[in-house]
Amino acid sequence: MPKTLKKIAVLTSGGDSPGMNAAIRSVVRTCAYHSIDCIGVYRGYEGLIEGDFKEMNARSVRGIINKGGTILKSARSKEFRTKEGRQKAYDSLVKANVDGLVVIGGDGSFTGALIFNQEFGFPVMGIPGTIDNDIVGTTHTLGFDTALNTVVDAIDKIRDTASSHNRLFFVEVMGRDVGHIALNAGIAGGAEEILIPEENLGLERLVESLNRSRKSGKSSSIVIVAEGDKIGKNIFQLKDYVDENMEGYDVRVSVLGHMQRGGAPSCFDRVLASRMGVKAVESLLEGKTNFMVGLLNSKMELTPLDNAIKGKTKINLELLRVSDIMST
Amino acid sequence: MPKTLKKIAVLTSGGDSPGMNAAIRSVVRTCAYHSIDCIGVYRGYEGLIEGDFKEMNARSVRGIINKGGTILKSARSKEFRTKEGRQKAYDSLVKANVDGLVVIGGDGSFTGALIFNQEFGFPVMGIPGTIDNDIVGTTHTLGFDTALNTVVDAIDKIRDTASSHNRLFFVEVMGRDVGHIALNAGIAGGAEEILIPEENLGLERLVESLNRSRKSGKSSSIVIVAEGDKIGKNIFQLKDYVDENMEGYDVRVSVLGHMQRGGAPSCFDRVLASRMGVKAVESLLEGKTNFMVGLLNSKMELTPLDNAIKGKTKINLELLRVSDIMST
Amino acid sequence: MPKTLKKIAVLTSGGDSPGMNAAIRSVVRTCAYHSIDCIGVYRGYEGLIEGDFKEMNARSVRGIINKGGTILKSARSKEFRTKEGRQKAYDSLVKANVDGLVVIGGDGSFTGALIFNQEFGFPVMGIPGTIDNDIVGTTHTLGFDTALNTVVDAIDKIRDTASSHNRLFFVEVMGRDVGHIALNAGIAGGAEEILIPEENLGLERLVESLNRSRKSGKSSSIVIVAEGDKIGKNIFQLKDYVDENMEGYDVRVSVLGHMQRGGAPSCFDRVLASRMGVKAVESLLEGKTNFMVGLLNSKMELTPLDNAIKGKTKINLELLRVSDIMST
Amino acid sequence: MPKTLKKIAVLTSGGDSPGMNAAIRSVVRTCAYHSIDCIGVYRGYEGLIEGDFKEMNARSVRGIINKGGTILKSARSKEFRTKEGRQKAYDSLVKANVDGLVVIGGDGSFTGALIFNQEFGFPVMGIPGTIDNDIVGTTHTLGFDTALNTVVDAIDKIRDTASSHNRLFFVEVMGRDVGHIALNAGIAGGAEEILIPEENLGLERLVESLNRSRKSGKSSSIVIVAEGDKIGKNIFQLKDYVDENMEGYDVRVSVLGHMQRGGAPSCFDRVLASRMGVKAVESLLEGKTNFMVGLLNSKMELTPLDNAIKGKTKINLELLRVSDIMST
Repeated sequence: MPKTLKKIAVLTSGGDSPGMNAAIRSVVRTCAYHSIDCIGVYRGYEGLIEGDFKEMNARSVRGIINKGGTILKSARSKEFRTKEGRQKAYDSLVKANVDGLVVIGGDGSFTGALIFNQEFGFPVMGIPGTIDNDIVGTTHTLGFDTALNTVVDAIDKIRDTASSHNRLFFVEVMGRDVGHIALNAGIAGGAEEILIPEENLGLERLVESLNRSRKSGKSSSIVIVAEGDKIGKNIFQLKDYVDENMEGYDVRVSVLGHMQRGGAPSCFDRVLASRMGVKAVESLLEGKTNFMVGLLNSKMELTPLDNAIKGKTKINLELLRVSDIMST
Repeated sequence: MPKTLKKIAVLTSGGDSPGMNAAIRSVVRTCAYHSIDCIGVYRGYEGLIEGDFKEMNARSVRGIINKGGTILKSARSKEFRTKEGRQKAYDSLVKANVDGLVVIGGDGSFTGALIFNQEFGFPVMGIPGTIDNDIVGTTHTLGFDTALNTVVDAIDKIRDTASSHNRLFFVEVMGRDVGHIALNAGIAGGAEEILIPEENLGLERLVESLNRSRKSGKSSSIVIVAEGDKIGKNIFQLKDYVDENMEGYDVRVSVLGHMQRGGAPSCFDRVLASRMGVKAVESLLEGKTNFMVGLLNSKMELTPLDNAIKGKTKINLELLRVSDIMST
Repeated sequence: MPKTLKKIAVLTSGGDSPGMNAAIRSVVRTCAYHSIDCIGVYRGYEGLIEGDFKEMNARSVRGIINKGGTILKSARSKEFRTKEGRQKAYDSLVKANVDGLVVIGGDGSFTGALIFNQEFGFPVMGIPGTIDNDIVGTTHTLGFDTALNTVVDAIDKIRDTASSHNRLFFVEVMGRDVGHIALNAGIAGGAEEILIPEENLGLERLVESLNRSRKSGKSSSIVIVAEGDKIGKNIFQLKDYVDENMEGYDVRVSVLGHMQRGGAPSCFDRVLASRMGVKAVESLLEGKTNFMVGLLNSKMELTPLDNAIKGKTKINLELLRVSDIMST
Repeated sequence: MPKTLKKIAVLTSGGDSPGMNAAIRSVVRTCAYHSIDCIGVYRGYEGLIEGDFKEMNARSVRGIINKGGTILKSARSKEFRTKEGRQKAYDSLVKANVDGLVVIGGDGSFTGALIFNQEFGFPVMGIPGTIDNDIVGTTHTLGFDTALNTVVDAIDKIRDTASSHNRLFFVEVMGRDVGHIALNAGIAGGAEEILIPEENLGLERLVESLNRSRKSGKSSSIVIVAEGDKIGKNIFQLKDYVDENMEGYDVRVSVLGHMQRGGAPSCFDRVLASRMGVKAVESLLEGKTNFMVGLLNSKMELTPLDNAIKGKTKINLELLRVSDIMST
C-alpha cells in the first residue's frame, strides 16, 4: 500500500444517479485541496481499460454540482469482468501514474473494484451512487433523495387527474429488488396501497383494501408498484385483474421510467456527495483501501467493500406501519 | 334568449387540464363582480342531469388558482348523448333558476353544449380546456402551456441519463390526433426526431436520420413520439424495429402518460384562464350564445361553437422546419 | 395522567414550515386508526384559549399532504404567556373533553407546552416544525429539507445571472441564531463563502478570500449570509464594505425572505411528518407526556421537552470543513 | 450590403434572460444548416471591440438549450458608446471575416446595433432578450414567460406562509418602466392589488382596497409591486405607510430580486428562441438588415430596429380589468 498518493482517478459506473457530478466535483476539489493530481476516467471500467482519461482540476468541475447524470459518462463493461480486461485497466493506471481509484456506483461496480484490488493491490474506495438506496453501509445512497422528489412530484400530478375523474392509478416506480423508493414515495404521495418486492400483499387483499378505501368515501386511488413487486404480475396484468374484479373504477397505468434517474440533485444529495467525495479521497490519503464511504448516524463512516456488496438493505418496518396507518 | 341573466352555471367536462380551476374561479368571480349568482356543477354533464349543483361565491374559489385538476370534477356522460338525458339536464337547470351555462372542456363537450342549445335554446358558452391544443378558434387551449413545461422537464431528466449512457430514447407524449405537444416539446427538449400524427416520416428515414445524427458525433438521442404518430406502430414496436435495424444503440422507451395532465398551472395558463372566464361570463351577459372564447392575436375573441368543433387545428409548418434545422 | 386518552387536540404554533400539514394529517389519521377522536385547534395557543376547535377525521385531512403552510393556521399568543390565558386554554380543552395535546412548532411553542403541563398536568407531546433545524433532539426539523431545496433552487437561478455578468452576489437566507440553512444550502449551491452566526470570518478575511477566489479564475462569486451572521453588519452594509474595498466586482444583494417558508414539502419532510405524527399520538396513548418526537439515528425517538428547549443544535464542523475544501 | 454572407457573429448584451442560450444555439445551428460559419462573441460589445471571439458549430451549443444565463456572457460597454470603440469593433469583425451580426438583448443593445450599422453599413439583426417584455415589435421577449413562472412560483410559496399567519405581503418584482411582469404574475398569483409604473393607484385607495378585501373575509393579502411603481415610494416605505394607517395587519416585505433572471427556460421561451434564431439568420441571408425579429400574431415578423427602440410596449388594459374583477 503506497504511503503517499500522488494521483487519484475517479470514475462513475453502472446506472447513473443525480449527485454523481457533485461527487466527481468533490473528489477533484479535495485532490486539489491536498495538492494531489486527479484524473477523470470516461465510461467507467471501459474507459479504465482503454486509458480514456482526462486531467481534472478545480476549474474542470465548475458548474456541475447541479447537473444530473455524469460528465464522465457511465457504462457496463464486460471486458472488466475478465482477468485480461482488468490487467489492461491496471496497466493504464500505472502508465498514467495513478495510485488510487475512487469508484462511484452501485454494488456491481464495487464488486469489480474489490476484485481489482485483490488482484493488483490497487487502492480503491467506493462512493454509493444509485437511486435504489439498496447498499449496506449507508442510510442514503447518492441520488435516492432526488429520485424520491421526482417520483412524488409525478404522483402529485397524477393525483390531480385521478381525483378529477374518480380513477384508480397504478404507478410503477424503480426498484427491482428493493422497495425503498416505492415505500417512501408512496407515503409521501399519499398512496392508498404500496406494492414492494419485500412483501406479498396478494391480489385478493389488494382488491379488498381498494374496496374498503372506496367505501370510506375515497373516489380515487393511487397504488404505487415497485418494478419488482412480489405479486409477480407486471403492472398491466395488475390493471387487468382489477378491471375484471372490481366494478366502477376506471383503472389507468403509469410507468414513470427513466425520468427517475435524472434531474438536478436535491440539496440533500449535493451535500451528501460533497461529504462523500472528501471522505473518499482523504481515506485513500490515509492509506485505507477497499472501503465504501457512507452516511451512518449522520456521520461519514467507512464500510468494508465486501460488507457493502453483501445483500441489500432491509425495508424499514416502521415505514410499512406508517403507510398502513396513513391509508386508514 | 334572456335579456338579463341572473344565474350562471359552470361545469368541467372531458379530460381535465391544468388551468380548469383557474377558469372556474374566474367564472365565479366575474359573476360576483356583476352581482350574478353562480353555481358549480359536479362531474360535467352527469352532474347537470342529476342536479348535482353547489352555490359558489368569491370565497368558494379561494386558493384554487394554482391547483391542477378540477374541483368540480369531470366525467364523460353517456346519458347526455340521449335526448332524455339532455331533457333531465334542462329540467335541473330550470329548477335551479339557472339561465346560462359555461362549459369548460374540449370539442366533445362543445358538441354536447351546441346540441343542448339547439334543443332547448339554453344559452351556452365554451372555454377550451384541454392539453392537446387541438381546438379551432384559439391559439392556446387551457393547459397546453403547462403540459408542455411538464413534458420538457421530463425530457430534460431523461436527457441526463441518456447522455450518461449513450442511449437512444423513444419518449411518448400525449396527442392522439394532433402533434402540438410533441412538436413544441420536441423542439424545446432538443429532440433529434419528432414523430407526429400529421406526418409520416417512415421507419427507414427515421433510422437514416438517427444514423446521421450519430455520425455527427451525438452519442445519445431522444425521439419524441406523439401517441397517434403516423408510422402506425406503437412505441414498443418502434423500439423493436430500431433494435433490429441499428447497431450499437441501447434503446429505451418512456411513456410519460397521465402525469402530463396534472400539476400547478403555469403563469400563462392562469392568466389565460382568468381572461377566458371573464370573457365567457360577460359574453353571456351580453346575450350571446353558442360561442367559444379563445385567444386570437393576443386578444380574447369569440368563435361560433360549430366552427370550433369542426376539425382540428393544423400543425405549424414553421415549427416543423425549425425542428429540422435545430437537429442539424 | 389519564390511563386511556379519548380525544386528542393538535395545533400549529410559531413560524409555519412545510410539512406541518402532513404532520396534522398524520396526527388525525393515527387517531382514527386507534379509534380516538381528534380535534384541530386554529391559530395555535390563541385558538386554544378561545376554544376555536374543529372536529377532524380521516377525510378532513385529505389532499393536504402536499400543501405548504398550515390549514390550522398559526399565531403567536401573548395571552398564553399569562397564567390567566393558560387557565382559559385548559378550560377550553376540558370543556371539549380533550385529554391530550400535540403541539407542532419550535422551541418557543414547546416552552409554552411544558409550562402548561406543569401547571395543569395536561399531557402534551411536541413535533418540531421549523425550517431552522435548531432544535435539540432531532437531526431534522419539519420543513428544513424543503427550505434547503427552495434556497438551493434560488441560488442556482442567481448563479445563472451572476456568471453571465461576472458579479458578486450576497444572498441572505433565514437563520437568526443558527447557520444550518446557510451552511447546507451554501455547500449545495457551490457558494464561495458562507457567513453564519456561529463563526466570525471577519471582513478582512472575507475580502481576502474573495480576492483569492477571483485570482483562481472565478469571474463570479456567491456569498451566502445567514440573517444572524456574526460579522454583525447587515447584508447591505456588507455590500457597501466590499464595494469600497474591492475593485472590479459588480456587487449585488438578494434577500430570499419568506419564500423560504412555503412550497410543497419535499418527500423527506412528508415522510418525516407522517412518522412524527404517528409517534406523537402513540406516545400520548402510551401515557407519555412532555416529550418531543424526533429523528435520531434514522429512528423516531423521544426527547424530554426540557432538553429540547435548552440551547440550539450545534453546527456540524465536518460541513464547515467540506465547505472550505469545496471552495478551493 | 453583401449579397451572400459567409460568416455570422452572435452576441448577448445587457441584462441576461432565460432563453438566451437557446437563441445562441439556434443562431449557430441555422448557420450550420445553411453552411455558413458562425462565431460567438464574448461579453457583448466589449468582446466585439476586443475581438474576443470563438468559432462555433452545431456541437458547441449541445446541451445548452435548457441552461439559464448566457454562455457568451453579457456586459455593458461604455467604449462601444464612443465612435472609437465602434471603429475597433468593426475592425475586429472585418479582421475575422465576419459579415453579419446577430445581437440578442434589449433596446439599449439595439440602439448600439443601429448606430453601428449606420456608421459602417454592417448588417445587423436583433433578437429581443429581456425578461421585461417591454420591446415594441414582439408580444413576448425572450425570458418573459420563464420569469413569470419564477415569480408566480415564489408568490405561491409566500401565499402559503401569508395565509398561515394572516399577513399582508408586499412583493416586489422586476419592471422599472413597465408593469408587464407585475400585472401578469399578479393575476396568476391571485394578488389582491398590483402596483405598476403605468398607473398611480394612490396610497389612500390602496389602503381602502386592502380594508375592503379584509372585510370580505380575506385574512391575508398579497400586493405585487413593480420596481418602478408610480406611487413613488419604495416598498419599505409602503410597508411603513400601511403599518401606520392600517390596524391588525402584520405587514411583511419580500423583494424577489435577481432570481427572476435565472433558471431553465420554459418550453415557450425555448421554442420562441429557436424560432427567433432561425428567422434572424435567414433574414440576414436574405440581405436584410436593421430589423428585430419578433412574435406577432403567432408568427415570426420583422420590425425595423428604429421602431423597436422607440418607447415601451403598453400595458394590456384588458389585463388590468381582469385583475380588478378577480380581486372582487
